[in-house]
Amino acid sequence: MKAEILTIGDELLRGEIVDTNKAFLSDRLLGLDVETRFHSSVRDDPPDMIDAFQRAASRADVVLVSGGLGPTRDDLTSETLARAFGRELRIDPEALAGIRAFFARAGRAMSENNARQARFPDGSEVLPNPIGTAPGFLLDVEGTLFFCMPGVPREMQRMMDEQVLPRIAARLGSAGGVVRATLLRTFGMGESALDAELSDVARSGDVSLGFRTSFPDNYLRPLARASTAEEAEARLTKVCDVIRQRLGPLVYAEGDETLEAVVGRLLRARGATIAVAESCTGGLVAQKLTDVPGSSSYFLGGVVAYANRAKQDLLGVPAALLAEHGAVSEACARAMAEGVRARFGADLGLATTGISGPDGGTPEKPVGLVHLALARAQGTHADHFVFPLDRSRHRLLTAQVALDWVRRAMLGVELIGPSLLRRSGGGSAPGSAR
Amino acid sequence: MKAEILTIGDELLRGEIVDTNKAFLSDRLLGLDVETRFHSSVRDDPPDMIDAFQRAASRADVVLVSGGLGPTRDDLTSETLARAFGRELRIDPEALAGIRAFFARAGRAMSENNARQARFPDGSEVLPNPIGTAPGFLLDVEGTLFFCMPGVPREMQRMMDEQVLPRIAARLGSAGGVVRATLLRTFGMGESALDAELSDVARSGDVSLGFRTSFPDNYLRPLARASTAEEAEARLTKVCDVIRQRLGPLVYAEGDETLEAVVGRLLRARGATIAVAESCTGGLVAQKLTDVPGSSSYFLGGVVAYANRAKQDLLGVPAALLAEHGAVSEACARAMAEGVRARFGADLGLATTGISGPDGGTPEKPVGLVHLALARAQGTHADHFVFPLDRSRHRLLTAQVALDWVRRAMLGVELIGPSLLRRSGGGSAPGSAR
Repeated sequence: MKAEILTIGDELLRGEIVDTNKAFLSDRLLGLDVETRFHSSVRDDPPDMIDAFQRAASRADVVLVSGGLGPTRDDLTSETLARAFGRELRIDPEALAGIRAFFARAGRAMSENNARQARFPDGSEVLPNPIGTAPGFLLDVEGTLFFCMPGVPREMQRMMDEQVLPRIAARLGSAGGVVRATLLRTFGMGESALDAELSDVARSGDVSLGFRTSFPDNYLRPLARASTAEEAEARLTKVCDVIRQRLGPLVYAEGDETLEAVVGRLLRARGATIAVAESCTGGLVAQKLTDVPGSSSYFLGGVVAYANRAKQDLLGVPAALLAEHGAVSEACARAMAEGVRARFGADLGLATTGISGPDGGTPEKPVGLVHLALARAQGTHADHFVFPLDRSRHRLLTAQVALDWVRRAMLGVELIGPSLLRRSGGGSAPGSAR
Repeated sequence: MKAEILTIGDELLRGEIVDTNKAFLSDRLLGLDVETRFHSSVRDDPPDMIDAFQRAASRADVVLVSGGLGPTRDDLTSETLARAFGRELRIDPEALAGIRAFFARAGRAMSENNARQARFPDGSEVLPNPIGTAPGFLLDVEGTLFFCMPGVPREMQRMMDEQVLPRIAARLGSAGGVVRATLLRTFGMGESALDAELSDVARSGDVSLGFRTSFPDNYLRPLARASTAEEAEARLTKVCDVIRQRLGPLVYAEGDETLEAVVGRLLRARGATIAVAESCTGGLVAQKLTDVPGSSSYFLGGVVAYANRAKQDLLGVPAALLAEHGAVSEACARAMAEGVRARFGADLGLATTGISGPDGGTPEKPVGLVHLALARAQGTHADHFVFPLDRSRHRLLTAQVALDWVRRAMLGVELIGPSLLRRSGGGSAPGSAR
């Protein structure tokens, strides 16, 4: 079954809003193993709409339309779809009564325009809208199913889940193959290095492997097809196992789990607490850690020590150390990590100090240099990197390495250093295109 | 001139990501008075791509393509566009050298895959990509201009603004009117309240006013048309003046300047320094302040005091105060702001303490409650809000109110309180539908 998604509205084509409906609808279709082949959008313009409808009918089995069902004169989906396929427009008495009831419940007067929303192409099945005035409808055009839904995301989403998906599922019956997919999140290897490492997995019969960069991470999306769900799941499990075996701890999570959520889960499981001392990341590591609900059970707090005086007063970094080595140094990172660990009485103390730029570099300490340290009861690990990135990405990558250190420390595996990042393709190379 | 935007990538058609590129590109085209007639997306699939390319050539004068320029085997834009119009693929030596240089700068090895990124359809003009490995290109197909750009938003955006728009403007020549537009950033008034307040400005002859929500802000996009550039600029200036007069300090910036950049500019101009004490925002305020290059000249540092012990030890909040009022209280917010101001020796001390949820609320102190305090030499201002938002939006809105307080304090105008936010439409209402 081939699907097309068609969204309608001048506001889309003028770039006034980002169209989130297409991603929602495609994701839902994928849940039924239906592939979306085409996304299209046109203005509230009858000739363009007719062209889009006719083309969709010629190339898709299911067409999901959103938008153009409102009460205003530029809402033209019903009448234009009728014209496109030579159908009459008919008032649906039940839909009209429903719209009247909606206005009565809201205590508002119903305008003549709203009555237009009860007109549908002849042969349509009306799809009720329990939370808005615009009903949707299903029209079968010589075997291609047009499902027309409102453009307002929450109304469209509810209609899709309650009215549209069950009808598509019924049509599908047991025909067609089954698809299972998942998302593996990796940190520490660039997209082209991953591609090279997994080239034999990427296209092997009924399995495909997609890549996606979400700086500073790279995501893998293995997808398996089979004639039954069990078989598809078994294939997916097998390919995930192969990937995890090849990449080891470079894979940090599956699905929606973020790195900070993984870190939180591991800290909680081990009953460990953490405090952070940040210079160049300026609060980003703390902010990520506290993005996770319930983080107060393991995150004790942090110090953003931008000024040297703050490093001395709040973290106990000796003035002599700062004078001798400077704030961007291994000695300072170690003192910050150990200081914050002691001040907060935490099991782990994590520190970042570096030059995110664009200014502040010297030949000895270039822009991009960053020192990290992780203090634990058994001692302090420190290392440094040079990331030739803009300020915002420098901070993001530094924070991600810092969080990944905590994850790796909890797992008891090697912490990422510059050589590992480089060997694996730059970790998360700037500017890999999708 | 008719434009079509075509985005390419399996991840779009599977609904894994929301396509923000189309809205960006359409908005930019509108700035040149070019109407986008069609949005389309196809998978990384040669037959579908060829079909989309040929159809676009038949109906549009300008086609903006994004995606499919990366180094992996599912990046097929160059070779498929060449096939669609019977062109050869050629290596561009300059582009190849550029890619080599990119990898050399990053200290990484270049893979064979990356060399593929220097192949373009015969007759293309290469468009450099200063921040990524994938160059773009322009191909003229019998009068239809295909601009192919990377799919990564920041690379695409820069290429659009620096390479593509000037070329389209040159083609347009002096035909058609002149358009001037700008972006006014507002904080503290909801979209529908703004719309009502400015309804007479919204459509008056040669001026139009667009609205865009970027939580927790709302942006206004006034656009003026005229036959000459001077006239268009004069009209734009006039409408901006009207808007600023109506909205007063609700307009915080024009163009790309963020709230934290405005705050930094004002602090620097007054020679003032700031330190922050964060509980519920968990480092977000510090992170935003330090996102701004050069922030070390006014941002001294911060404390993320998640645990009560940290509030006592690092900020000097008395244990008795915490016992009597609790951590989420005006008394605690005041003590945190005054404590962090004293510890860092800053002119301003800013504090947040609240319940971002999803758990931790009580009937007296519900989820969503947040106390803010701003300590200065002349005294401490405190207030509280209840934001019924999810955790991440609660933190974002809280941080934005806190930063806006600093801006308003520097300007000597009233600080936003709950009544002002409510009167002006909820500040930034959750879930405004399109």
